[in-house]
Amino acid sequence: MGIHAYFRSLDVLDRIIRCPGKFKFEEHSVAAHSWKVVQYAKTFADIEEQQGAVIDWKKLYRITSSHDYGEIFIGDIKTPVKHSSMQLRTLLQRVEEGMIHNFIEEHIPREFKAIFQEQLREGKDQSVEGMILEAADKLDQVYEAFSELQRGNTEKEFVSMYRHALLSIRRIPLKCVDYFFDSILPDLVNEESMSPVDIRKITEEALASPPSQPYPA
Amino acid sequence: MGIHAYFRSLDVLDRIIRCPGKFKFEEHSVAAHSWKVVQYAKTFADIEEQQGAVIDWKKLYRITSSHDYGEIFIGDIKTPVKHSSMQLRTLLQRVEEGMIHNFIEEHIPREFKAIFQEQLREGKDQSVEGMILEAADKLDQVYEAFSELQRGNTEKEFVSMYRHALLSIRRIPLKCVDYFFDSILPDLVNEESMSPVDIRKITEEALASPPSQPYPA
Amino acid sequence: MGIHAYFRSLDVLDRIIRCPGKFKFEEHSVAAHSWKVVQYAKTFADIEEQQGAVIDWKKLYRITSSHDYGEIFIGDIKTPVKHSSMQLRTLLQRVEEGMIHNFIEEHIPREFKAIFQEQLREGKDQSVEGMILEAADKLDQVYEAFSELQRGNTEKEFVSMYRHALLSIRRIPLKCVDYFFDSILPDLVNEESMSPVDIRKITEEALASPPSQPYPA
Amino acid sequence: MGIHAYFRSLDVLDRIIRCPGKFKFEEHSVAAHSWKVVQYAKTFADIEEQQGAVIDWKKLYRITSSHDYGEIFIGDIKTPVKHSSMQLRTLLQRVEEGMIHNFIEEHIPREFKAIFQEQLREGKDQSVEGMILEAADKLDQVYEAFSELQRGNTEKEFVSMYRHALLSIRRIPLKCVDYFFDSILPDLVNEESMSPVDIRKITEEALASPPSQPYPA
Amino acid sequence: MGIHAYFRSLDVLDRIIRCPGKFKFEEHSVAAHSWKVVQYAKTFADIEEQQGAVIDWKKLYRITSSHDYGEIFIGDIKTPVKHSSMQLRTLLQRVEEGMIHNFIEEHIPREFKAIFQEQLREGKDQSVEGMILEAADKLDQVYEAFSELQRGNTEKEFVSMYRHALLSIRRIPLKCVDYFFDSILPDLVNEESMSPVDIRKITEEALASPPSQPYPA
Amino acid sequence: MGIHAYFRSLDVLDRIIRCPGKFKFEEHSVAAHSWKVVQYAKTFADIEEQQGAVIDWKKLYRITSSHDYGEIFIGDIKTPVKHSSMQLRTLLQRVEEGMIHNFIEEHIPREFKAIFQEQLREGKDQSVEGMILEAADKLDQVYEAFSELQRGNTEKEFVSMYRHALLSIRRIPLKCVDYFFDSILPDLVNEESMSPVDIRKITEEALASPPSQPYPA
Repeated sequence: MGIHAYFRSLDVLDRIIRCPGKFKFEEHSVAAHSWKVVQYAKTFADIEEQQGAVIDWKKLYRITSSHDYGEIFIGDIKTPVKHSSMQLRTLLQRVEEGMIHNFIEEHIPREFKAIFQEQLREGKDQSVEGMILEAADKLDQVYEAFSELQRGNTEKEFVSMYRHALLSIRRIPLKCVDYFFDSILPDLVNEESMSPVDIRKITEEALASPPSQPYPA
Repeated sequence: MGIHAYFRSLDVLDRIIRCPGKFKFEEHSVAAHSWKVVQYAKTFADIEEQQGAVIDWKKLYRITSSHDYGEIFIGDIKTPVKHSSMQLRTLLQRVEEGMIHNFIEEHIPREFKAIFQEQLREGKDQSVEGMILEAADKLDQVYEAFSELQRGNTEKEFVSMYRHALLSIRRIPLKCVDYFFDSILPDLVNEESMSPVDIRKITEEALASPPSQPYPA
Repeated sequence: MGIHAYFRSLDVLDRIIRCPGKFKFEEHSVAAHSWKVVQYAKTFADIEEQQGAVIDWKKLYRITSSHDYGEIFIGDIKTPVKHSSMQLRTLLQRVEEGMIHNFIEEHIPREFKAIFQEQLREGKDQSVEGMILEAADKLDQVYEAFSELQRGNTEKEFVSMYRHALLSIRRIPLKCVDYFFDSILPDLVNEESMSPVDIRKITEEALASPPSQPYPA
Repeated sequence: MGIHAYFRSLDVLDRIIRCPGKFKFEEHSVAAHSWKVVQYAKTFADIEEQQGAVIDWKKLYRITSSHDYGEIFIGDIKTPVKHSSMQLRTLLQRVEEGMIHNFIEEHIPREFKAIFQEQLREGKDQSVEGMILEAADKLDQVYEAFSELQRGNTEKEFVSMYRHALLSIRRIPLKCVDYFFDSILPDLVNEESMSPVDIRKITEEALASPPSQPYPA
Repeated sequence: MGIHAYFRSLDVLDRIIRCPGKFKFEEHSVAAHSWKVVQYAKTFADIEEQQGAVIDWKKLYRITSSHDYGEIFIGDIKTPVKHSSMQLRTLLQRVEEGMIHNFIEEHIPREFKAIFQEQLREGKDQSVEGMILEAADKLDQVYEAFSELQRGNTEKEFVSMYRHALLSIRRIPLKCVDYFFDSILPDLVNEESMSPVDIRKITEEALASPPSQPYPA
Repeated sequence: MGIHAYFRSLDVLDRIIRCPGKFKFEEHSVAAHSWKVVQYAKTFADIEEQQGAVIDWKKLYRITSSHDYGEIFIGDIKTPVKHSSMQLRTLLQRVEEGMIHNFIEEHIPREFKAIFQEQLREGKDQSVEGMILEAADKLDQVYEAFSELQRGNTEKEFVSMYRHALLSIRRIPLKCVDYFFDSILPDLVNEESMSPVDIRKITEEALASPPSQPYPA
């Protein structure tokens, strides 16, 4: 098989639902999440560019578009598991990379192997594009958690997801991140909400906490 | 409101299901479709670039990522309706553009208005990037229709969608389109199928028909 | 094909979901909506008859039962689009009528063509039956919007749908409409609600607004 | 409460799924089923009228529109249970009637009690309208079972449902039933099918069986 | 056929949804319910054993694991129907037993007939195991109703289900029931809730009511 | 919190869908799967007992009822990942055990800690009960894969799952396993099927392969 195998596999990510096991008013597939990340990253890059940064749009396109493709091979491993030990995290990453490597070896024609190898590897490095991807990925967690809390979901994990995602974004030294905190987040906090959780308060508390280490340490 | 209004609206496209009214074994949202289009376009552009074309990746990113955003305002209007008269088509397009314009006026801060105006307008022009978008968009119709036919869906519209999408792609004068017909489509046709429809035969018949006018006449 | 084509097509309306794109706690198909309209219209006609009106039950049956059949051909076009210009509205209606005409020409046997032509055309005229249909159709919007608001849905469109539907009903000069405002709506407003929106207040405000033009101007 | 309680209760029938427990490619609510019955009955009555019968459209409207309303109180009791003994059937019917009576006593205003009592009682009597309702109700079983078989559903109950529904219709001495067997069923049988079951054969076998007792003995 | 027929039939209970017709934020199949009953019963038996009771674990396993298997034959009959008269209840139970008997006769090999006859009959007798099953079955109603109320479901039946299930449990003379009221229910009542219903209050009111007859009179 | 935390957590397994990412005609939750495993194990133990084995029913109840509880903490990790290296497998198991330990420490009262520690640990040891659990767990994979294949699902993983599960069962030295191959599997293979895959053939091929190492090496 050739590139058809890759195109055909994309639907797998449209069948994997994020946050399995938690009660949710609305479900999102990894495919839909990926598309929203593409959108956020586009706008973040526009803002960054307007502030003088030089964006490598080809790289940004490459790393954002298939940033979760590895889940096809690995499945959904809960964050606390991945982070339970550096050794486990490294092992899991190595398995994922091995499986992606095998997929490319088996299916992708020789002349495109290098391109797919670039495209399907983890893109969250310290370049502007890598940091935009990280910010965009975490922003979707902010929106996912917020939507649930706003509708009155009382699962504690959504409070925790909202808070951690905000703090992860704050660590990223980008102008678009400043813009997010100054001009986007306030609108979000001002939306009408059914939540018994005070979203404004957990937002303010999170942002009042002392700064953690800068990205990506 | 500001850019938050745009980010917040993206979930709308995750709730609009393509091909409403037809029986389907599997449903796809416009958001998931959009993500797959981003993927196909990425690979098509890689192929095109390898054959010597120069790709404006920023433009490609911009036009592919939100190419169906207008459906938020317009809803799903069936293709035969849109195409029933040139006058109606023009009117509908004008209404869509007007609504997008109003959205930008109301929500997008002054310094980003021009960017969003570019991003949210129809991108299927005669540039390489515009033609790649058209090919990628139609390719998802090929895959959607094929998946249903392959599982034994007997709705006639999927045969028709498959055939029309193939013929639309064939009109596009790109190297990646040649690659698709030479190296990707054969793998698709060779997949095991439950269909009482002979997918190979309708593929061959479609491709044997005399060439229609080149894109986008 | 003959009448089988009509019977077979009914499931299409059981697959089209109303208000696509909006977050909803509960979805309703056009088929289920149509059935509820049949029920409301039955009771409205009973009330009207009790107040001395003469009801043509055959006509009422005909126009209520398939009042949304045209959506099979047209799809879901958002209300603001339809109403954006008189010219567009007229064009869309002409397309819908043309498609219904073609369907009847193609599928319905000669001896039933006239009956189906009557049955599938827009029934909301100024007769008692036409006005009952309009009232029943709008009443389902009242109930759909109310159900969502009552459960705490914060999408603004449901407030707007509730208000507009109430005002549309108020314009209709029927005894059953008076009965609705005097004896049915108060029970609805008194139901327990989770909504941060004050349903009683928006009801009272809507009804306090100066009367708009009478139906159907 | 008043009539609001009735209107509000209609959604219950949009939440009850027919044939619970069986694997189905497509689910149908009792509300959607009821709407299709209204449609079939409309066309059957048109045919009957064309052949010279006099139709009481008010009665037909009344009995078809809410013919399954009792399921709100009773739930879905499997047909073999209902038919296991005449004593059980009578008891269940008495319970259903008692519950409908109580609902009307509690919720429906005095001046409408008689109307609702008429509307919510079993309408399948020996009048033309009662027989049309019976034919239309069984026809939806034919279509439901056929749709599943056609898509390759191998649950034996759908073969059995298809056969029994056909035979039940055949017992009904109406012109529209003749029309159904002469002019509608052949089109159904000629549709393309994925079924390992030979639908034509089971249709012919069913119709070749000696006539059972005429309706409703 | 043999035991395969039994194994194959289990999926039926994974397709029957509890509380059909009521609006629910979350649906549960009879299979999932049955599994939770197995879990509660396990813990209740552990508690009981710790307090000195002797548990027949084989019997407990047998009666809890398939306690709702009869629904495969009978379907979901609403509780008020079942309880509307002793005569109807007895008749329905007899029909269910007859159908189970027929299933065993037809499908289960001779050497296992006695085992299945034991396994598939009603297990809620006055033994410790029978009472544990009753407590566990009602406990799932407590949790089902609580989950809905907690998320803000305003359907009155869930308040009623919660209250009746609590009172049914209270009638059962078991140590594990005392433990439930002393050490489990308080944690449930203390959970954060979106409900306009005061769960603590309806719990206290229910438990303040004078004791009803002990189980199972 | 106490045991309420455990009872409350059970719904998590009703929200985790097995085989995420694969196209399926029918989805099964881990809770529903667990219940079917309880059923298969019950019958396997009955057969084993009839053949002279002594069953510890308390142990069997304990290990089968919550055998997948760990997925609440770990999520769904694809089998090839788990099996990619012994080191990774050991690490993942250690993480799971650690999380279960923490859950018990945090939530379960002192007097029940030992019981839950027993209940929530991996039960597939070399005892009769442990082997019955292994056979029952794999049998549900046989049924899940068979159901999909039978309906015409062409995903290759279901063929592979069916084959591997059969071979895993064959390795288990139990009388009930012999009974399964002699008296249950033949009925399964004889069911009508839509599959382009020849289920009989892959069954025979699998069983003709030379015996692998006995369980659990």
